[in-house]
Amino acid sequence: MNKIEGGVTAPKGFMAASTAAGIKYENREDMAMVYSKEPCVCAGTFTSNVVKAACVQWDMELVNSGEKMHAVVVNSGIANACTGEEGFAACRKTAEAVNRCLSVPASSVAVASTGVIGMQLPVDKIEAGVEAMSEKLGDGLEDGTKASKAIMTTDTVNKEIAVSFEIGGQTVTLGGMSKGSGMIHPNMCTMLAFLTTDINIEKTLMQEALKEVVQDTFNMITVDGDTSTNDTLMLMANGLAGNPLISKKNKDYEVFKENLFDVCRYLARKMAADGEGASKLFEAKVVNAKSKEDARTLSRAIVASNLSKAAIYGCDANFGRFLCAMGYSGAEFDQNDVELFFVSEAGKMQVFDHGTPIVFDEEQAVKILSCEEVMILVDMHEGTAQATAFGCDLTHEYVTINADYRS
Amino acid sequence: MNKIEGGVTAPKGFMAASTAAGIKYENREDMAMVYSKEPCVCAGTFTSNVVKAACVQWDMELVNSGEKMHAVVVNSGIANACTGEEGFAACRKTAEAVNRCLSVPASSVAVASTGVIGMQLPVDKIEAGVEAMSEKLGDGLEDGTKASKAIMTTDTVNKEIAVSFEIGGQTVTLGGMSKGSGMIHPNMCTMLAFLTTDINIEKTLMQEALKEVVQDTFNMITVDGDTSTNDTLMLMANGLAGNPLISKKNKDYEVFKENLFDVCRYLARKMAADGEGASKLFEAKVVNAKSKEDARTLSRAIVASNLSKAAIYGCDANFGRFLCAMGYSGAEFDQNDVELFFVSEAGKMQVFDHGTPIVFDEEQAVKILSCEEVMILVDMHEGTAQATAFGCDLTHEYVTINADYRS
Repeated sequence: MNKIEGGVTAPKGFMAASTAAGIKYENREDMAMVYSKEPCVCAGTFTSNVVKAACVQWDMELVNSGEKMHAVVVNSGIANACTGEEGFAACRKTAEAVNRCLSVPASSVAVASTGVIGMQLPVDKIEAGVEAMSEKLGDGLEDGTKASKAIMTTDTVNKEIAVSFEIGGQTVTLGGMSKGSGMIHPNMCTMLAFLTTDINIEKTLMQEALKEVVQDTFNMITVDGDTSTNDTLMLMANGLAGNPLISKKNKDYEVFKENLFDVCRYLARKMAADGEGASKLFEAKVVNAKSKEDARTLSRAIVASNLSKAAIYGCDANFGRFLCAMGYSGAEFDQNDVELFFVSEAGKMQVFDHGTPIVFDEEQAVKILSCEEVMILVDMHEGTAQATAFGCDLTHEYVTINADYRS
Repeated sequence: MNKIEGGVTAPKGFMAASTAAGIKYENREDMAMVYSKEPCVCAGTFTSNVVKAACVQWDMELVNSGEKMHAVVVNSGIANACTGEEGFAACRKTAEAVNRCLSVPASSVAVASTGVIGMQLPVDKIEAGVEAMSEKLGDGLEDGTKASKAIMTTDTVNKEIAVSFEIGGQTVTLGGMSKGSGMIHPNMCTMLAFLTTDINIEKTLMQEALKEVVQDTFNMITVDGDTSTNDTLMLMANGLAGNPLISKKNKDYEVFKENLFDVCRYLARKMAADGEGASKLFEAKVVNAKSKEDARTLSRAIVASNLSKAAIYGCDANFGRFLCAMGYSGAEFDQNDVELFFVSEAGKMQVFDHGTPIVFDEEQAVKILSCEEVMILVDMHEGTAQATAFGCDLTHEYVTINADYRS
């Protein structure tokens, strides 16, 4: 991965802006816009929750329609979910405001919201925000950074990345930003993520690549087991890199997909590590599983378990909780085949060996579990499939944040 | 329900004892035994976790064998799960100790453990405990109460109940005790529960009744989404009430099943309210659902959601989290059909009406949510099925307990 400076404004032709629209938060920016004057092919994946926010429904129509895309408008503070007809009208009015300000079709504008469910958006403030941002659009890297900050809710750090790579002798750039730290669970994990690229690619191929990459990146995050109403990942490509159009699964496609994977994985890990109240990144890697699906199921069960998460927080080498989580995950296996290790930059230690606990050095275990990035490595000895899930520990701070989120 | 004093020793012919075996806890009793000199027909339901503790495997064999049962020996502190051959041998040695002391077959003795996973039981201490308890067995109500205290782990209160009812002109008594407050999640929820009765009933019918009753009682509890390796519910019936043998699904059977339901529901609610770190009982009742399965799925998703649980802790009327949980539960529905209410002894308040949020009095909502027992009532307007799930709030104390459980 050739990481470069910047985020969504790193690729050619993308601009961003942000503003303090006063939707919910005070003394900070709470709206962002990403814009490409050149029309973009777009791809997206969305929450699997049957209660979908109005904006998710709006964006799904845009992606499915085959329409070209010019912009996405995002607000933090209110999720525009469970808001009935009025919520859907708010999406339309937001897009129409962009149409008035930037002369692109309202149908080319995506909208996204994150925050409290069951509250109506103040449409006048949203419209004023769109007007203000339309005048502030800039293609500087700092414009992208400011946008990545404006979409935060309980996030403690903004998340952005950009990479570049060569295709057909042309430099292609791919940038992204994401947010989300509570209501995070696979399919989709709770999050908003927006990726931009100047690559020249066919829409259907791009959608296919995104869908595939999401399985092992964003969909492997879990913070609290709650799959949000608003999860949205969108990718816009305006073609300005000038590479020969990618229209089949050739080597160029593979290069793109690899870079897309790296960007999504980077953002996914950042989001997991910044899960609500988290003090650590908590990963579970399952190797030699019977099938890819089993590997995913098992690794996610480990990082999703409250008891596992609390043990990681307390640096408590209570490995039985990981085995217990695997046991109720739904995957079939025999505990007598399993080996279990703790891994971090402080070392690697085996704690369970084919059905039997290993007597281990508690002090060394605490040292390993005290690192900022901790991994549980599980060898199933059943096959060749593997998967890694990304999560975080469960802390007092998580409870504090969520016991009184709305006020 | 005709509740009477006592627990497992309330029915005729049942004795109990407890002792401080020094397995893990200091300054408290940590072993219990329940015993019937008369042989009992027995029934049981066990964890669905594929990683089953040694004792669970032992008890499943006993229940499935058709063997008569005389006793159950329980220890708290160590779960005897993920302990391989050595763990299974510990079960056999425990049963053999009972055989030596009380002259009942080792194969008539059930064993149960709760506590840390992945640690071997100190068999010498267990055997000494069995010897001590065999000499202390008593049929007083206080003997049952002491047993119910000895099986506690992070429970803050012991749970026991007894009821009596008439069958064929005879008074039948049914008693029970249970424990369990972490690793609690349906199928089976994490728990140990032991029921005793002097009813005269056929084994297969008793098993059927138990299995049916569990669905809407113990299996509707969730504390933290973690289905334990050790969940065990056993019911022993020694026939001493002298009622005509229940051998078909007649009115006597129904009376028994109703009382069994009441006892299980009572213990289930007590366990939910005493979930690790809990400050409240948090129930979700779903009515007018398409199917019983949907009603169960939806109600469990609500009480299992960390975000819902944290909101209940904070008395935060953030009803969107309940809808969100329903949305990812797996049940299909249209949010435009749904009505949602907060209910407690302080009142009932509607917050969501067919897809649209209702403007409600925040102060009154806080009043309702501040009670010790809080219910979310959901009307699906889709059918006639209903179910209630039992849970608790997610508190700072939960994290404290579980961040350092082993020490």
